[in-house]
Amino acid sequence: MREPLRLGIAGLGTVGAGVLILLEEQQELLRQRCGRDLRVTAVSSRNRNKNRGVALPSNVIWCDDARDLAKSSEVDVVIELIGGAEGVARQLVESALDAGKHVVTANKALLALHGSQLAARAEKADRALCYEAAVGGGIPVIKAIREGLAANRFERVYGILNGTCNYILTKMEDTGADFETVLSEAQDLGYAEADPSFDVDGIDTAHKLSILASLAYGAHVDMSAVYIEGIRHVGAMDIQFAREFGYRIKLLGLARRTAHGIEQRVHPCMTPLGSPISEVGGVTNAVVTVGNYAGQSVFEGPGAGAGPTASAVIADIVDIARNQILPPFAAPSSQLEHARASPMELHQGAYYLRLTVLDQPGVMAGITAIMAEHGVSIDSIIQRGRAPGAGVPVVLITHDTEEARMNQVLTRLKGLKQVVETPVRIRIEKV
Amino acid sequence: MREPLRLGIAGLGTVGAGVLILLEEQQELLRQRCGRDLRVTAVSSRNRNKNRGVALPSNVIWCDDARDLAKSSEVDVVIELIGGAEGVARQLVESALDAGKHVVTANKALLALHGSQLAARAEKADRALCYEAAVGGGIPVIKAIREGLAANRFERVYGILNGTCNYILTKMEDTGADFETVLSEAQDLGYAEADPSFDVDGIDTAHKLSILASLAYGAHVDMSAVYIEGIRHVGAMDIQFAREFGYRIKLLGLARRTAHGIEQRVHPCMTPLGSPISEVGGVTNAVVTVGNYAGQSVFEGPGAGAGPTASAVIADIVDIARNQILPPFAAPSSQLEHARASPMELHQGAYYLRLTVLDQPGVMAGITAIMAEHGVSIDSIIQRGRAPGAGVPVVLITHDTEEARMNQVLTRLKGLKQVVETPVRIRIEKV
Repeated sequence: MREPLRLGIAGLGTVGAGVLILLEEQQELLRQRCGRDLRVTAVSSRNRNKNRGVALPSNVIWCDDARDLAKSSEVDVVIELIGGAEGVARQLVESALDAGKHVVTANKALLALHGSQLAARAEKADRALCYEAAVGGGIPVIKAIREGLAANRFERVYGILNGTCNYILTKMEDTGADFETVLSEAQDLGYAEADPSFDVDGIDTAHKLSILASLAYGAHVDMSAVYIEGIRHVGAMDIQFAREFGYRIKLLGLARRTAHGIEQRVHPCMTPLGSPISEVGGVTNAVVTVGNYAGQSVFEGPGAGAGPTASAVIADIVDIARNQILPPFAAPSSQLEHARASPMELHQGAYYLRLTVLDQPGVMAGITAIMAEHGVSIDSIIQRGRAPGAGVPVVLITHDTEEARMNQVLTRLKGLKQVVETPVRIRIEKV
Repeated sequence: MREPLRLGIAGLGTVGAGVLILLEEQQELLRQRCGRDLRVTAVSSRNRNKNRGVALPSNVIWCDDARDLAKSSEVDVVIELIGGAEGVARQLVESALDAGKHVVTANKALLALHGSQLAARAEKADRALCYEAAVGGGIPVIKAIREGLAANRFERVYGILNGTCNYILTKMEDTGADFETVLSEAQDLGYAEADPSFDVDGIDTAHKLSILASLAYGAHVDMSAVYIEGIRHVGAMDIQFAREFGYRIKLLGLARRTAHGIEQRVHPCMTPLGSPISEVGGVTNAVVTVGNYAGQSVFEGPGAGAGPTASAVIADIVDIARNQILPPFAAPSSQLEHARASPMELHQGAYYLRLTVLDQPGVMAGITAIMAEHGVSIDSIIQRGRAPGAGVPVVLITHDTEEARMNQVLTRLKGLKQVVETPVRIRIEKV
């Protein structure tokens, strides 16, 4: 049997504790599957005395400063579970790679913002930089794209990448409650953070999407190229209207290659009822890939939590223990493309538009005239309820058109004095 | 750049031609992802002059006998696409491994019947034996279980592994037609073979299940341990009743570890409407794994066809080109368990039972008395329609019980003179 692989774990929160528990509980199984022992030799955390529900391995080296793990001669693999795109996490990962250690991380922000330079460092040092846990929780989707589907060009890659948003949208549909009410319940239940903006404003989804897009398209990670819109503006009424039109609203991250470059966007989508992605409820995540040979593949599973995340972290460690080491983004980083970002203004698609208008004669004529003027054609309209002189909802579904035209239409519509609330625009994805 | 990886392809049917087309069309992409060229240097097929819609590479060596590929000094990897558990396919794979060549195969029958000894050969020769295309078409599920979920013990692994059966069951539900009618349509459309028994009698599913079970449980492949029942006895009426009870009938292959060993079974199942597996329609395949850390993961995609299968075959070749070589069943074959097979008689579960009985007084009393005698308790009964003196359907759903008891009950029920057709028994899976 080969010598043990020595692990240094930085961060002993929920996930870090999960990793320790898994390593202890499945020790025999992992030894068999790796052909060697996985041994935790060093750890680092802010609080040395906290009860984590798991004993630290005997003789483990405790580092008060996580960055010391990078220097330890007793560590082969640094497991970074601190989080955050800068500060200690970034310093640790950089110095660990430079010191010739493998790195496993669950840190999507770090990868999204510094993935390319970190990959170059890893390759220079001939070490692994693995991040299965950064996207899709326990679903082995990084491996699927990097290896299992390596024969494919991807027509598109998209998914439900944030469990908190999917939980909120599912709950809004189930209960009819509005966003704020459900968010606050989710916070009470621990499904949403006290400061929820990272999740509900789409940032977390964008981090994950930029990683998937880089892998799928052989391009440098480019978080700045992602168009981002969260779910705060999705109303209870939109959820109901979606259903009437045969859709369900999901926050998706989508990437595809267009004639103008790589399009990356995060926003609420109307997805057709019955499509695999529309059926994914609660905190579950799902990634759909459309490959030119494999066709449509769907990968679903728990998107977060100690168990699934630990499963993904250990899968990376198992790869390293088995000497299965690839360039972090599959192709060597010197060969990754500096891809053009396809501007959102050029996006083509159908749109759902909900306006709140004064119930007055001639309103509809005004709205439809503006749309006609900008060459946006209407597929269907729902106007319902009467409230003379007050605001009533009007919903329009357009045929496929260009985002730029819709932006012009929206600006014009906002300017109408009969339009009394900010219009809600939700893109329709015929996924 | 490393030297090209030289491929010898045995079998140029639909899949073989698909592999040639993919290799040609995605040449640049594959070179980038592998860091070397993939070059077809030799091929073998029965008919040299057939038009396959793709030109053979120039200077390719043509072997009239596929087994000559194993001897060729121009071949590093033999790609076996002939099929069949014996004969040329088996001889080729064995001799190729013995000659120190890597082998990639889509041959589930070969793996199911000879997987263990082939794995031992591959390991002895320090070569790869890869078979991603053998299960789940283009879905990279072998890799997911072997690597992506390597940190998990699997509570269960199950799936829709045969597109033909799933197509037939979906079509029966959509049209209300009976099995024979739909089968014959499927044959006309090319979705079912002229001799459909391999598919509809569950053999193909059993081959694939035994491979998944071996991988998931670290045990020798044991096709003989699989309980197998096909879909011929599923009636149009059962499909309707299933819906009434909140189920949809799917042919599943299921494996799990029980106190009595590893249970492997293939049979039609009542799956709860709304569960991921119940929503998989048509020729799509799906595999669900339940890991003790990752939780439930779902993998879905096209289960067959030239494109998806070629995608899976090339994924294996890419692994070899990248030197990503593992023992075929993850753990070295010397460490695989000779697992006990959990006998089907000990299976625990709920049952759907459809009887055709004479519409006479006292029939129901007779049936329920037999069930009570064998300790099988009834959850619900549907008796509907009246046809004095003629056969009417009675459907019973049991509470969880043991298969052995149900076998006794069925024997007794068949003996009743008022039971005028063979009872239909379908197991309920609360997946």
